[in-house]
Amino acid sequence: MNSLWTDTISRLTPYVPGEQRTGSDIVKLNTNENPYPPSPMVLEAIRSVDGHQLRRYPDPESVALRQTLADYHGLSLDNVFVGNGSDEILALAFLAYFTNNKALQFPQISYSFYPVYCDLYGITPNMIPLESDYSVNLDKFEPNAGGIVFPNPNAPTAMDVSEEGIRQLLAKHTEQVLLVDEAYADLGATSVVGLVNDYRNLLVSHTFSKGRSLAGMRLGVAFGHPELIDGLQRVKNSFNSYPVDALAQAAGIASIKDEEYYRSIMNTILETREQAVRDLRERGYEVLPSSANFVFAKVPGNESAARIFEKLSDAGVLVRYWSKPLLDQWLRISIGTPDEMQKLMAVLDA
Amino acid sequence: MNSLWTDTISRLTPYVPGEQRTGSDIVKLNTNENPYPPSPMVLEAIRSVDGHQLRRYPDPESVALRQTLADYHGLSLDNVFVGNGSDEILALAFLAYFTNNKALQFPQISYSFYPVYCDLYGITPNMIPLESDYSVNLDKFEPNAGGIVFPNPNAPTAMDVSEEGIRQLLAKHTEQVLLVDEAYADLGATSVVGLVNDYRNLLVSHTFSKGRSLAGMRLGVAFGHPELIDGLQRVKNSFNSYPVDALAQAAGIASIKDEEYYRSIMNTILETREQAVRDLRERGYEVLPSSANFVFAKVPGNESAARIFEKLSDAGVLVRYWSKPLLDQWLRISIGTPDEMQKLMAVLDA
Repeated sequence: MNSLWTDTISRLTPYVPGEQRTGSDIVKLNTNENPYPPSPMVLEAIRSVDGHQLRRYPDPESVALRQTLADYHGLSLDNVFVGNGSDEILALAFLAYFTNNKALQFPQISYSFYPVYCDLYGITPNMIPLESDYSVNLDKFEPNAGGIVFPNPNAPTAMDVSEEGIRQLLAKHTEQVLLVDEAYADLGATSVVGLVNDYRNLLVSHTFSKGRSLAGMRLGVAFGHPELIDGLQRVKNSFNSYPVDALAQAAGIASIKDEEYYRSIMNTILETREQAVRDLRERGYEVLPSSANFVFAKVPGNESAARIFEKLSDAGVLVRYWSKPLLDQWLRISIGTPDEMQKLMAVLDA
Repeated sequence: MNSLWTDTISRLTPYVPGEQRTGSDIVKLNTNENPYPPSPMVLEAIRSVDGHQLRRYPDPESVALRQTLADYHGLSLDNVFVGNGSDEILALAFLAYFTNNKALQFPQISYSFYPVYCDLYGITPNMIPLESDYSVNLDKFEPNAGGIVFPNPNAPTAMDVSEEGIRQLLAKHTEQVLLVDEAYADLGATSVVGLVNDYRNLLVSHTFSKGRSLAGMRLGVAFGHPELIDGLQRVKNSFNSYPVDALAQAAGIASIKDEEYYRSIMNTILETREQAVRDLRERGYEVLPSSANFVFAKVPGNESAARIFEKLSDAGVLVRYWSKPLLDQWLRISIGTPDEMQKLMAVLDA
């Protein structure tokens, strides 16, 4: 605290991302990164950069990348917005659509950046409790009372809601924006991207950080009705004209074009996940049904999740733990390679 | 306008960057890009990327890059903050320090993004007129009445104020932040980076887009007292944890390490600028004294700057023109290569 600090700074409790510890013997299962590198075509696109691409500003509107994404999803250029990771997409969308003096509804257990954005912009949060099985019940959101945002699948539970459930909510919730945060859509989770032209208030966010192995490049996407996308463009162009650099645009395009590669690594990750679920259950863990590249697992009996988290960390196996009500007996474990998952199991057994 | 749009979106008039037209015969003198590519060491750093760097999140705190910048300027790690271009630095700094219900003072003719940030965050602007020779008179700012921001050298005039003038202002203005936007410091313009530990309210922003030829990579820096930097970190970590991607961090470090290369291209640019000033004056243009890689030039006599701007554009020579009071007889011309400047002069002669 400092006399120069504004109320904005002073009221913040910033988001804390998972630890980015590095080292060849670290098993990093704490930030839902893809264990496999991006497509060789992505590396080729980056390595073919020339100095004149770098000395010039990138296309501020990222037209080639947005058109590639539009074609991939059967949409138009004006349905697509790109930003510096899906966190920037969320930060701009909250500023664009939720600073309307109405309470914003989101699940009580959810992506922990949502309450941070509320603090940043002075938005009142209205946190909706989960069901006792940790699922999100969409009937608990009050239609039109204020904006609604939820991750699908949810974080950190990995549980999803159905497209039909989202359609039913959209049939009633027509006057405020519904933002569905689909960070795991590239891993085969349910996606409602195909509905954005049917509902003028539906905004869907994706990221290249998970399924597409590009967390290091910072690339996120929003899909929506052209008038919603236009609102995001207006806010972006009033904040930072060029958030997506030249190499991220080139890498994103190359990524979308190598569908075969990503289907192959996705299938491997899903197989590894199913094996990990079996292995954890054998060890007495309760594991929630996962539609993502991570699992949420409750430690057995009277064991302390905090203590297991520390022991794993000491052994170089990083997972995610939150010392919070409802979460403090659970660990969120990203799906790594089969070898990495075996190392995790070996440390759990020790 | 749309019933889903909030007041935030509706009140915005977004910033419009210079046109990014491409093509081998385009002479692009409209966005103050460096005409020379970045150091070969920068390209080498980018091309040596491996897939595992890309699949993982970058260091959210950019420690290696910030330490490199701190060492270069004789400062400490906690004096340095980095972001996605200096526009993001400004956007975060305005949110952190100027949303305090006091009017923000900046020159009436200045970087045209400042009033856009004011609109975005609901900050009241207090625009201070320039002197009749287009210089900024620091005595016209009211100390402690609210925050102060100005570019040094100013945009689009290219005229600078002295370090001594800034010291005198800081002696009186002690209770609100003074942000000096030094986008052109790497081109030899006056810099007050060395003063940041002497004044707890001085924040200085730099960019890698101009002198360091990395507009395509999006990299900006803020220097300040550790408590000011801590405030920026809090806001950044409440907006987007990882705005600087892995390749931008690597490119920035390589850039700082090749001082010899940048001194060499800077000297060439300054020589080309002096020749361009002589050539424009010979053609009847009034040219303001420049401390940057661009010049601000008033068209001769009764000619129309708008018409010359259009004619240049038709001939593939892009410069910047604003149809605004005080500016509408002027052109802002970036310094290109000697060949590019000769092409500009040839079109002006035609």
